[in-house]
Amino acid sequence: MMNGLKDVPLINGTEDFATFLRGSFVEGRFVYRQNFFVRSYETGPDKTISMETLTNFLQESALNHVSSCGFSQNSFGTSYEMDLRKLIWVITRIQVQVQRYSRWGDEIEVETWIDVGGKNGTRRDWIIRDRYTKEIIAKATSKWAIMNRETRRLSKMPEEVRQELVPFYFNKFAIATEEIDQQKIQKLTDATAEGFRFGVTPGWNDMDVNQHVNNAKYTRWISESVPRKMLEDYKMTSMILEFRRECTHSDILESMTSASSKVIAASNNKYVSRKPHLQYIHLLRLQDNKTEVVRARTEWNLKQNHT
Amino acid sequence: MMNGLKDVPLINGTEDFATFLRGSFVEGRFVYRQNFFVRSYETGPDKTISMETLTNFLQESALNHVSSCGFSQNSFGTSYEMDLRKLIWVITRIQVQVQRYSRWGDEIEVETWIDVGGKNGTRRDWIIRDRYTKEIIAKATSKWAIMNRETRRLSKMPEEVRQELVPFYFNKFAIATEEIDQQKIQKLTDATAEGFRFGVTPGWNDMDVNQHVNNAKYTRWISESVPRKMLEDYKMTSMILEFRRECTHSDILESMTSASSKVIAASNNKYVSRKPHLQYIHLLRLQDNKTEVVRARTEWNLKQNHT
Repeated sequence: MMNGLKDVPLINGTEDFATFLRGSFVEGRFVYRQNFFVRSYETGPDKTISMETLTNFLQESALNHVSSCGFSQNSFGTSYEMDLRKLIWVITRIQVQVQRYSRWGDEIEVETWIDVGGKNGTRRDWIIRDRYTKEIIAKATSKWAIMNRETRRLSKMPEEVRQELVPFYFNKFAIATEEIDQQKIQKLTDATAEGFRFGVTPGWNDMDVNQHVNNAKYTRWISESVPRKMLEDYKMTSMILEFRRECTHSDILESMTSASSKVIAASNNKYVSRKPHLQYIHLLRLQDNKTEVVRARTEWNLKQNHT
Repeated sequence: MMNGLKDVPLINGTEDFATFLRGSFVEGRFVYRQNFFVRSYETGPDKTISMETLTNFLQESALNHVSSCGFSQNSFGTSYEMDLRKLIWVITRIQVQVQRYSRWGDEIEVETWIDVGGKNGTRRDWIIRDRYTKEIIAKATSKWAIMNRETRRLSKMPEEVRQELVPFYFNKFAIATEEIDQQKIQKLTDATAEGFRFGVTPGWNDMDVNQHVNNAKYTRWISESVPRKMLEDYKMTSMILEFRRECTHSDILESMTSASSKVIAASNNKYVSRKPHLQYIHLLRLQDNKTEVVRARTEWNLKQNHT
């Protein structure tokens, strides 16, 4: 336990306390580590946190990481050169694998770093551990692109921005490359969807400072068309979100879900025991013109007290 | 600043760090104090926290207070004698006054205590301060009753439970008694309501371990029938919620709002400058049989950057 704490700043005054809660760099300046104390209101009826809470922790550590890099503090994780050019970050894909969900009062440690991701973007990874045992409890990887905040169109990464980021790139993968799901998520249609939830309306506080629905909110909405019994008996162990367009406060969404055909095939082969118990695909789309907002694929296992 | 920190435990190891985040007793064992570091995902598009986040902080500190009293840890703030009798706490009324809303990265300090509240209940108060300047940024008072978790009916407070609580009672008011709003909130009807939002559906994670919608969630839902322009330009400075029945996961709600006639009258008199800019009343009711769930009254002031 003491080994794991060696990089954490000493808590000997109010300044250091703040540093500790905000997080700090470890492994040189490549990895940023932040501690979380799970609060009661972040847990659900089964006393564990949800995938939504977990994605909130991912966001919080990522933003603190970027602001600790010495970049501008003006916006949600933008760098100085991005601010000059009215550019913001948008997430295009995220994959999260959960080993177990934390409970109220648990202390967890989130590590995050960035790496090059394609020609015009970055990859950001996370590893979440129990702060005491150092057991890995979740891992995630994500892809980010750059958008002009006025035209709302994707932009090339300016060379000046790349120069700001390169010193922080760290070539390490939270999820082994062979486990990173590159597969495009199949599109759900009215004919193939099995669960529907109409009239999903963003609340004012679902918006972030970029004036669109914050990506962590979608995690809640994809669950809204999942059968209730599922939410009671199963826990989401894996999630992949593909973000396809922004959603603003005036949009009304439909959430659609279907059991994935893949898992039915998988249950007939010898690998069944290593497979998730259930797999779903999801679609969030605008209610008025059916434009896609988010595609998702999730895996679920029976809760431990049910097995 | 140093004076205010004198009761906070020294942070000299992992155990003390946990104590610090969970909170600890001050002023003998009467007042419980917990520190919060405001996280990015708890702020909205205007970069400040919402009333919902504030009520979450109230709940978290209250639960940590009760569990630190040496009571049973089995449920949401219940005592040992309550657990024996299958009794749980339910909130019946809460009043929150907000001076200013915190921002991402702000550190705040929440103090809470309980007192006798009527024949069969308790009163719980809170004072929220900036952790450094000690400026009071919000105050709250609430009333709690006891419910049987199987029959879901209110119960008298057994003498054994009262004996457990009495040593913690502290006769201090967070909100001056003359400022405590005792007035019954007028009931909205279809004829008097001006804003409606139908089909408000609790998500699975809106439930708490008592198997009903957690009280902090209603704060979000009463805002759902408030005109959008209001949410953009005004900030809620005061809120009173009257809880009238439980709501479970299968319930569908309607949120209704109306500008209060009182404020219109008030704007014609000489006290207008001390009055809130706007006052609303709200009703949350079940969509199918129109049973009341929550009545609320809120006050709003123009956001500072609009004045």
